[in-house]
Amino acid sequence: MNLICCRGDPTVFEPYWRKAGERCSITFKGDQCLSYLTNPKALCWFMEPKLEEEIKKVHRIVGNAKVDDHHLVVGNGSSQLILAALYALCSPNHHTQPHPIDVVSAAPYYSTYQEEVDLLCSALFRWAGDAHQYDNKDEPYIELITSPNNPNGVIREPVVNRPGGRLIHDLAYYWPQYTAITSQLDHDIMLFTASKCTGHAGSRIGWALVRDEEVAKKMVKFIEVNSIGVSKESQLRTAKILSVASESCQEKGLNNFFLYGRHVMANKWKKLREIVKKHQRFIIPKYPLQYCQFSKDYVEASPAYAWMSCKFENMEDQDCEKILKDQNVIVRSGSRFGSDSKHARVSMLSREDDFNVFLQRLSAISKA
Amino acid sequence: MNLICCRGDPTVFEPYWRKAGERCSITFKGDQCLSYLTNPKALCWFMEPKLEEEIKKVHRIVGNAKVDDHHLVVGNGSSQLILAALYALCSPNHHTQPHPIDVVSAAPYYSTYQEEVDLLCSALFRWAGDAHQYDNKDEPYIELITSPNNPNGVIREPVVNRPGGRLIHDLAYYWPQYTAITSQLDHDIMLFTASKCTGHAGSRIGWALVRDEEVAKKMVKFIEVNSIGVSKESQLRTAKILSVASESCQEKGLNNFFLYGRHVMANKWKKLREIVKKHQRFIIPKYPLQYCQFSKDYVEASPAYAWMSCKFENMEDQDCEKILKDQNVIVRSGSRFGSDSKHARVSMLSREDDFNVFLQRLSAISKA
Repeated sequence: MNLICCRGDPTVFEPYWRKAGERCSITFKGDQCLSYLTNPKALCWFMEPKLEEEIKKVHRIVGNAKVDDHHLVVGNGSSQLILAALYALCSPNHHTQPHPIDVVSAAPYYSTYQEEVDLLCSALFRWAGDAHQYDNKDEPYIELITSPNNPNGVIREPVVNRPGGRLIHDLAYYWPQYTAITSQLDHDIMLFTASKCTGHAGSRIGWALVRDEEVAKKMVKFIEVNSIGVSKESQLRTAKILSVASESCQEKGLNNFFLYGRHVMANKWKKLREIVKKHQRFIIPKYPLQYCQFSKDYVEASPAYAWMSCKFENMEDQDCEKILKDQNVIVRSGSRFGSDSKHARVSMLSREDDFNVFLQRLSAISKA
Repeated sequence: MNLICCRGDPTVFEPYWRKAGERCSITFKGDQCLSYLTNPKALCWFMEPKLEEEIKKVHRIVGNAKVDDHHLVVGNGSSQLILAALYALCSPNHHTQPHPIDVVSAAPYYSTYQEEVDLLCSALFRWAGDAHQYDNKDEPYIELITSPNNPNGVIREPVVNRPGGRLIHDLAYYWPQYTAITSQLDHDIMLFTASKCTGHAGSRIGWALVRDEEVAKKMVKFIEVNSIGVSKESQLRTAKILSVASESCQEKGLNNFFLYGRHVMANKWKKLREIVKKHQRFIIPKYPLQYCQFSKDYVEASPAYAWMSCKFENMEDQDCEKILKDQNVIVRSGSRFGSDSKHARVSMLSREDDFNVFLQRLSAISKA
């Protein structure tokens, strides 16, 4: 049977939440949350105040992003917020600009960016590919910076660095379970998602920290027109889950959610590295030791994805996706990320059992 | 203080759900709903099977739409589904078509359609205004048919009726509390929303019944790229609420949710008609008596909005929004609906107390 490793489905933290038990439960009565509105006078009128409070709290405790000088905008996952941000950054000029604004990201980049940007063939913005290759020198542009990067886990800075550029920082994976927290980031637009923070992808809650008020207002406008807000049930449940995660940070060991997450992820990476080292048929990235201000120790990154490539000397076509597919392991080809088919992205976010099956099949390929 | 009657915020049914009590409650534990996926092999892979079952059940019981030959697609409210449907109907041709496909709707039309269609300046589709005025004879087009219509409550048919036309039926208000259920509709694309069915707008759950499999698949693709699915908490809670609504249909009196809803709405309309009749300063539509197959009796519609116009003989400028605003009643001007400022839309979906304040202020204006 096929083993699905192509999606970043974050079921890896399930045991933590199972153990956390009743403290995480939330009940909705029939007459709750009927209204579209939460706070009609707030900038983000559909955002639950409790969610805002818990998002700010967890960022302060983890120390990964500054929240005090930013406006908070909640969205249906960070996907919707990327579109909202593109709309906000492009809409003021669309009647005067001669063509859509270029959107770039350094390869390998998250495979969905291109799909998202091009989906409706907008006259406001268009996908312009790899930021490293971008040479449209005199035009305004938007650069998406994913840090740690999806698919390869590296910490990133903008690469175009030209006047007229606007930046969107996708920080979905900038949490202690995946990487060292080395500084409190303070960018203009910073995107996060519950999916990768606590693992609750089914709730579809993302949030943006936005410095400029006008940009934040336009993002809210986009979400208002696109979906008239965001599920209140999901917002209130995410607030609950985040409050439990924040509270757990008072503990040192594996009761601390983020230290638990790091432990589980590091353990998976350790097992993967052992097999890769033993068989010498695949290559995975190494990450430097870095001091984490959250855990106060030196750690190596344990990213959400393994960005693998092959070294089968007897093969002409080193198509990593295909090689893995022959063993019924479904991964996403590097070509989807603006890279090549020698590479593939493998999710490290699966349940323990599935991950062990992956390791067995990887061994089998390596021995073949 | 301003009284907000400009939004269709459906808090009117709150007392029913409060009384229904525990039967409507739903609890989520911390380890539930972590995955993005629900049923990877299903056409709508992010839809909860329980929601699909309850949606089909309520349509069968109410008798307002055929469900057996249609695919079900769930969305973040029906707003997102409108965009998904436009994408699905336009995307196959966008590389060959010379310009965006025209989207029309008969005036007065729902004010948000135009905003939605034009938001991203898509090359796939564009707003072309009032279907009655549409004379772009040789082009493909899409007509949005809202029935009962928002803002004026009338039952509608397509008006352009030309080859090459594709139809989207927005049936948000085709439920017994607003109008007689005169037939089981069987259109190609039919949109519904929990907001107007049960009043749970905060959940942001809409659904589409789609005859053509390819169109349904493309709608799913749009939602996948736009927001990677739909809140599972909202889906499961909506399933619960719908199951209680369906079950209540076994009862005859006000325990039956839809009969309760009709009673409350009819009562509001009765009060409004009395005041309008007494003072002779405003005009509201009359609706014909129609046989309702759900309740098995003749009923007059009690729409979600009152589409009002003024007849102040001494005034030159009969701006209905402005006249009401002078009494601190905030409504939406007819000009926003492709009509004129003599008209305005007033929500009939507010809580009883707010509605009574509205009636008082309307009396005060009328006497002035």
